[in-house]
Amino acid sequence: MNEFDLIARLTKGLPCNESTVVGAGDDCAVLDLGIRDRRFLLKTDAVVQGVHFRTDSDPRSIGHKALARCLSDVAAMAGTPTHALVTLGLPREYSAPWVEGVYAGLSALAKRLKVAVVGGETTASGGGVFLSVALLGWVAADRCLLRSGGKPGDALLVTGELGGAQASGHDLTFEPRLEEARWLAAQFPVHAMIDLSDGLAGDVRHLVNSSRCGVEISSEAVPVSRSAKTVARQGGKTALGAALTDGEDFELLFSVPAGSAVDLLDSWKQRFPDLRLSCIGRLTQDRRVMIRSRDRSVPLSVDGYQHFQKS
Amino acid sequence: MNEFDLIARLTKGLPCNESTVVGAGDDCAVLDLGIRDRRFLLKTDAVVQGVHFRTDSDPRSIGHKALARCLSDVAAMAGTPTHALVTLGLPREYSAPWVEGVYAGLSALAKRLKVAVVGGETTASGGGVFLSVALLGWVAADRCLLRSGGKPGDALLVTGELGGAQASGHDLTFEPRLEEARWLAAQFPVHAMIDLSDGLAGDVRHLVNSSRCGVEISSEAVPVSRSAKTVARQGGKTALGAALTDGEDFELLFSVPAGSAVDLLDSWKQRFPDLRLSCIGRLTQDRRVMIRSRDRSVPLSVDGYQHFQKS
Repeated sequence: MNEFDLIARLTKGLPCNESTVVGAGDDCAVLDLGIRDRRFLLKTDAVVQGVHFRTDSDPRSIGHKALARCLSDVAAMAGTPTHALVTLGLPREYSAPWVEGVYAGLSALAKRLKVAVVGGETTASGGGVFLSVALLGWVAADRCLLRSGGKPGDALLVTGELGGAQASGHDLTFEPRLEEARWLAAQFPVHAMIDLSDGLAGDVRHLVNSSRCGVEISSEAVPVSRSAKTVARQGGKTALGAALTDGEDFELLFSVPAGSAVDLLDSWKQRFPDLRLSCIGRLTQDRRVMIRSRDRSVPLSVDGYQHFQKS
Repeated sequence: MNEFDLIARLTKGLPCNESTVVGAGDDCAVLDLGIRDRRFLLKTDAVVQGVHFRTDSDPRSIGHKALARCLSDVAAMAGTPTHALVTLGLPREYSAPWVEGVYAGLSALAKRLKVAVVGGETTASGGGVFLSVALLGWVAADRCLLRSGGKPGDALLVTGELGGAQASGHDLTFEPRLEEARWLAAQFPVHAMIDLSDGLAGDVRHLVNSSRCGVEISSEAVPVSRSAKTVARQGGKTALGAALTDGEDFELLFSVPAGSAVDLLDSWKQRFPDLRLSCIGRLTQDRRVMIRSRDRSVPLSVDGYQHFQKS
């Protein structure tokens, strides 16, 4: 059983209540807490030593990453983050200055984005370090973007460049696309959005499965990062393969009506001249995930990076 | 540097914002999200294999405990929990039925208390299992109980019986005191409240430090559990020592004006006949933590169970 199968089984029978607008299965939970025009967003995410960071990484960047991952999920709903809580699991032997460095990195990002860090807990970890962040945010009720709103015919777009994030250190320093997502939701009829954490090949599947449609990606249009090309030269993967499956890009993947795409690409260039935006394909009625190279379209068989595989 | 010193250093410089009523340093964060008469409560807590449970424990009880610990913190503010998120860290080798058992135990408690479980994440742990729960709840703005409201002269009361929680398995099956806390806040002028997670000796210090006062505990009045007595017979600690320092009792410790204590004890017996309530001392002007045995009062030097100690 892989991670996604297990999660699907675990989340099937979870209890719900009336104030839950969207429960498990999107980037954040969406809650109606009694303010008519506002929805609240709730998310947790953990980073683990040896999986998401090494202890010889700059501790500030580890704290940055732990918070930024959650912020990226709030961005994927076009939300605004407000409050965070931090749980830090520490081995018996730890360095207090290292821990303070982690907190400093997390706090610096929080402060810049006006997110209050309203509590923390340290606990023994039993193994390496882990850092679990819980985040609360909000979004205007009519601007909340889900994974499930995609429609056949939609253009599929992605911000930034993909692949090689861990090789380049992008995964430790990335900037969550909060401002870009809110701008998109305010200016264009975005149908569906997700942030890329597991890699395009895996995450596009989440988006189209939620939207009950399929997708055809144009391989030539996928924005391949310089780091993905370096990874490719060092062997193991092609540059496109790295862009599709490396994971931890934390870019936005979203769909808009095809008729809006050109206008959107133009406006984007004005508004965010330093961040690439690429139209990489279109959503389809046929519920498969296909990749087109020149005039040949084949099923995209590579899954995104999975955190673990049951042996 | 011990756990509390480290937390104090880490939480000192955390960023805040206008909607934060109470940040780090109480049982939950208290937030003003824009509903006048309502405050929202946010809390995270983690349980870790080898620290808070053993893998040979019933997986359902591990799930129960993970959620119940957070619920106990919401209870300590007299709140009502509404939404939970679960982060599960798993080693490379794990048993899917075991994981499903953990989720079943957590879900059963959530369902009974009408808490929606609105998302989950599984991740590789790098070591043993950890389970981090984030919880959102609410409380009427005028009924939110903090640690900091205690006043010299207050009577200090505690629910249930203390000590030996891990030895008896109480730590895996305990019932968070949600109903009792809401009843207390509604019926009596409770000044300060905290839940007992680290042990009375440690947690009373948090309450009186926050309230800028001291306390004198009457040793004969401390409700010692049967399990604490068993632990004592097996050596290592006295029964009173176990009741003061074992931790994981998850009972409520609170203060009321001395004039309310007798009336409260009477009403409690009517309302909760199966749960003991004990008046164990009084808050003092003198900012020390004292324990009185017959006519001798001495500083209480034993600290609560600390999760780890820097070596």
